[in-house]
Amino acid sequence: MSRAADFLAAHREGVRLDPEAIARCIDACLDCAQACTACADACLSEDDVTELAACIRLDWVCAGACESLARALSVRAGHTETLRALLDACRIACGACADECERHAEHHEHCRICAEECRSCEQAYSSLLEALDRR
Amino acid sequence: MSRAADFLAAHREGVRLDPEAIARCIDACLDCAQACTACADACLSEDDVTELAACIRLDWVCAGACESLARALSVRAGHTETLRALLDACRIACGACADECERHAEHHEHCRICAEECRSCEQAYSSLLEALDRR
Amino acid sequence: MSRAADFLAAHREGVRLDPEAIARCIDACLDCAQACTACADACLSEDDVTELAACIRLDWVCAGACESLARALSVRAGHTETLRALLDACRIACGACADECERHAEHHEHCRICAEECRSCEQAYSSLLEALDRR
Amino acid sequence: MSRAADFLAAHREGVRLDPEAIARCIDACLDCAQACTACADACLSEDDVTELAACIRLDWVCAGACESLARALSVRAGHTETLRALLDACRIACGACADECERHAEHHEHCRICAEECRSCEQAYSSLLEALDRR
Repeated sequence: MSRAADFLAAHREGVRLDPEAIARCIDACLDCAQACTACADACLSEDDVTELAACIRLDWVCAGACESLARALSVRAGHTETLRALLDACRIACGACADECERHAEHHEHCRICAEECRSCEQAYSSLLEALDRR
Repeated sequence: MSRAADFLAAHREGVRLDPEAIARCIDACLDCAQACTACADACLSEDDVTELAACIRLDWVCAGACESLARALSVRAGHTETLRALLDACRIACGACADECERHAEHHEHCRICAEECRSCEQAYSSLLEALDRR
Repeated sequence: MSRAADFLAAHREGVRLDPEAIARCIDACLDCAQACTACADACLSEDDVTELAACIRLDWVCAGACESLARALSVRAGHTETLRALLDACRIACGACADECERHAEHHEHCRICAEECRSCEQAYSSLLEALDRR
Repeated sequence: MSRAADFLAAHREGVRLDPEAIARCIDACLDCAQACTACADACLSEDDVTELAACIRLDWVCAGACESLARALSVRAGHTETLRALLDACRIACGACADECERHAEHHEHCRICAEECRSCEQAYSSLLEALDRR
């Protein structure tokens, strides 16, 4: 677990959203990006790597999207429209990656774990999007 | 200029969109991310750095978003909904960063150049979004 | 905590180094990158931001280095010389960032936490470097 | 070509090294990272993807290292030891990636281009390292 929550508490400016929800979302981003990078690498060693090409590609795209969202959530840029669009894009990327990983989850433990992380991220992003809309 | 176009031509699978439009967009992403990183760094040396805090933050967010889009455009993941959402998020991030940089363009040459790069990116993303919609 | 250890266990190819040591190191990278990004952002809101410019810059450099090391450790590229050089570069970057953050740790809680994370990372990298040399 | 040189010229603080050499190096980083990402993706579509697994992995590691170096070169952190270690690590990563890509250059155009970009980067990093040592 990163110390995102401690940093939000140490920040001089008031936080607009629930800092715990943001910190949970940052950690979800980092864990998901790591899961996708590791899953892509593990896929490369499988006998059915050709069937896993789509999975590897979605892993990469999803990892990159989650990393950029972690940055956006850690930086108090204050531009809600940007944050909402990035959250939405990452929610879609995680959903697509989870769909593909789930197709291989029965045969590959790394795909099973990665799908789990992506679904958990998708949920975290949806919750934060709802919190943004409620403000 | 990166050799994104050469790679698209060397790729075994057919390209769904105009490869030159994708290559132009990848180069716009990379140049914009670099411009934003350099602008943020230059802002830190200015006497009015306090007034530039919002600019620095949007620079970071925009750089991260453009880097993740460059990856998504370089990877043939084939999930159009993800690509469209990422393009849209980056278009918004570039627009927000350009708006802020333009406020300081008269006093800071780096903000002027960065605003220019962000606007150029915003345009490249809009064009590619339109091309996606026309398919 | 990321699930790096689970992925290493699910990987088809044998791991050359102690998988727990690698997983600990990956998590240290991710936590440190996040701490540096958050510290840089928090610095931007301080009254003495001018004095914190060096800290912000080292935060950025260190975050980028740790992110690239997390990727290198997650990917079984098998090129030990590259891994060793990246570990060494990140160890130096974390040390430099910790040195600078410690200068401000008394006044800024975010610098105190960030210095702690950087020192912990520096230690994790040194341990893995030693494990690489012992092989 | 990014506008790294324009930003270095617009920067308020004096540049310690030849700004054109730094700008060339930043552009080499960005082009190489893009080449490696695109090569990895193209490899995934080849019939001999199993033989290309090492190439794909080195592509990823090299891309991540070059991206973090581009950031370090764009940020005036002023810590020469860190910069030197990162340059050295990236020089080694590019060399390793070029070696592997060259093994497949005859059969795959994307590997040929990628090897070329990696060698060009390796050279740019060596030159900047020498310039750092001459100071």
